[in-house]
Amino acid sequence: YITGESYAGIYIPFLTEKLVKAPLSGVELKGFAIGNPFTDEAIDSNSQMDYDYNHGLISIESYKAIQKSCQNKVLAQCLYYDRCSDDCGKALDEANAEANTTYLDPYYLVGDKCVLDDQITTLQYHYVRPLHRGTVGPCSANFATTYLSQENVQQAIHAFENTTISWSQCNFNISEIYSRTYSALPKYPTILSAGLKALIYSGDVDSVVNFIGTQRWLTTDGLNLTVKDKWHAWFGPDKQLAGYTERYTNLTFTTIKGAGHMVPAVRPLHGLYLFECFIYGEQACKNFDYPKDELEYVSGAEPDYFDDDSSVSFTVYLYIAAAAVLAVIVGGVWWQRISRRKTAYVELKSGATTYQTQP
Amino acid sequence: YITGESYAGIYIPFLTEKLVKAPLSGVELKGFAIGNPFTDEAIDSNSQMDYDYNHGLISIESYKAIQKSCQNKVLAQCLYYDRCSDDCGKALDEANAEANTTYLDPYYLVGDKCVLDDQITTLQYHYVRPLHRGTVGPCSANFATTYLSQENVQQAIHAFENTTISWSQCNFNISEIYSRTYSALPKYPTILSAGLKALIYSGDVDSVVNFIGTQRWLTTDGLNLTVKDKWHAWFGPDKQLAGYTERYTNLTFTTIKGAGHMVPAVRPLHGLYLFECFIYGEQACKNFDYPKDELEYVSGAEPDYFDDDSSVSFTVYLYIAAAAVLAVIVGGVWWQRISRRKTAYVELKSGATTYQTQP
Repeated sequence: YITGESYAGIYIPFLTEKLVKAPLSGVELKGFAIGNPFTDEAIDSNSQMDYDYNHGLISIESYKAIQKSCQNKVLAQCLYYDRCSDDCGKALDEANAEANTTYLDPYYLVGDKCVLDDQITTLQYHYVRPLHRGTVGPCSANFATTYLSQENVQQAIHAFENTTISWSQCNFNISEIYSRTYSALPKYPTILSAGLKALIYSGDVDSVVNFIGTQRWLTTDGLNLTVKDKWHAWFGPDKQLAGYTERYTNLTFTTIKGAGHMVPAVRPLHGLYLFECFIYGEQACKNFDYPKDELEYVSGAEPDYFDDDSSVSFTVYLYIAAAAVLAVIVGGVWWQRISRRKTAYVELKSGATTYQTQP
Repeated sequence: YITGESYAGIYIPFLTEKLVKAPLSGVELKGFAIGNPFTDEAIDSNSQMDYDYNHGLISIESYKAIQKSCQNKVLAQCLYYDRCSDDCGKALDEANAEANTTYLDPYYLVGDKCVLDDQITTLQYHYVRPLHRGTVGPCSANFATTYLSQENVQQAIHAFENTTISWSQCNFNISEIYSRTYSALPKYPTILSAGLKALIYSGDVDSVVNFIGTQRWLTTDGLNLTVKDKWHAWFGPDKQLAGYTERYTNLTFTTIKGAGHMVPAVRPLHGLYLFECFIYGEQACKNFDYPKDELEYVSGAEPDYFDDDSSVSFTVYLYIAAAAVLAVIVGGVWWQRISRRKTAYVELKSGATTYQTQP
């Protein structure tokens, strides 16, 4: 299987087509899955303002101005390359200023924005709490950047040996060295006819590579795929509606409700279930065990959860003993880190001395 | 001040107009605020499918079918009164089936749905955990219904004396006795020219009385209000982008990002700040104290939070002692309710014997 997300919407179709046309011996390609895939610059960029207006990021006045002055234009020219000199460009600039994506996370509209001071480069902020059934907080990328930029980490993973480089998530310096392609759509006829399993999925609160654009290149504005199974809701192992799915000829399109650009980060259970059902099949994944979280009990998905257990007394002493031990441990932790402890996930540990390096 | 939400979009403009035209002595009306207001049946209902399609609830195929067959129709006839006999009705029925709002909360698209078995009428499910900076879980309405349906509660609050009635959130039996009005828009010219403070606000992930319809009746499709302050982001006391706001002549329209139909339930901090700024003024509210939550520290909005305090040692013993006491309490709780305790908010207490009744 090949999988990836975002700009993988370009390179996965290219790679897949290559493997279909010239298979590697020993590699049996079964399928591919791409999340919030940037696929066709014109279609994806032209969906941006439709998405933004309909998600309350820009005003109705700006949206009407764009509709009037940007007819039949490829908005990518303005949105990505700053080639905005006319009325359309002005309208787009105003709309982008309104949306204020400096202080909004355009990749996860309903989440918080990391507002860490850029001057802070230590790992002292290491408590990361779930936002919604996920353990990735708004500053996780900052922590990762700080972590991966450390010399001893880079040495340990043999990256850039003897060079300290400040790691970044998206290094556009690299992509700009190569010639660009503006659409992966021409690759799809070949790879769709190869009999592969194919999944395109979209977290539906990502505004950047949004599902509206994706749906358009799959249907009316691009591939014009034929519907095999109509649009319908799908459900996670927690019995919650997890999004919607539609099967086209040789390809399934699935949305993940309330997820941003990074689906597993904020909808880990639904993401895991989606991937396992894709790989192992709809029937098999139903029999797998999945982790449960508190919200399943709060929503009533596990009705036995709060039933009183009447045959109790014996193990209770164990719990009290455990609680006492816990108290000592808690006290010990407080000794070092005083107060301010929260009932939060602890994702990253500070302290450079604890990193493992190879002998 | 007069405030309310949802159907208050009808009765608040009616009441306000009455108070403007015939003021009550001793009542100095200062303003009104209405949240996700159902205001004009035609405009609000016609925005439904636009909203649903753009939020990934219905397929592009259904949306195109609706656009084709429902031109110039008032969709309310079909959506609210089941008068769907033609192609438009069929397309709407299919779209509604796709969205599957039985298993989705259409009032809060990114939240969980309560899946409590309807047979369960006790208050045993009393742990309610925050979803996103709010303490209202998906089953809170079920708990409230069970609580308010209890005879001793109804007696205590002197409701329906000597009668046990099953309470419900929206009792349509009552509204159907009265003649209906289909738009509150004709009331606006009078109340807007009365010099009142006026706020219309929308949680932007409510699909039912969605912000797109609200924006339409404020502007192009209804009141055609003039823009005084352009659309721009506003921020909560937690430094997070809380939504967008635009001031029209004599009225402000404000969205609350990531909030559903019940704004304070899922965005309590941003809701509180919005209301206090509305009542006390933009400058005054900036000086008020607001509660903080853990996510402000996770996002880096409070950078001192994790700073190590080096003058520690004295109080540490107190914390350890407190932890030991805590262990005993925890043990006691476990004695009664064994295991399964979670670090969750406790919102409702079970056990009818603890209700306070008047002497």
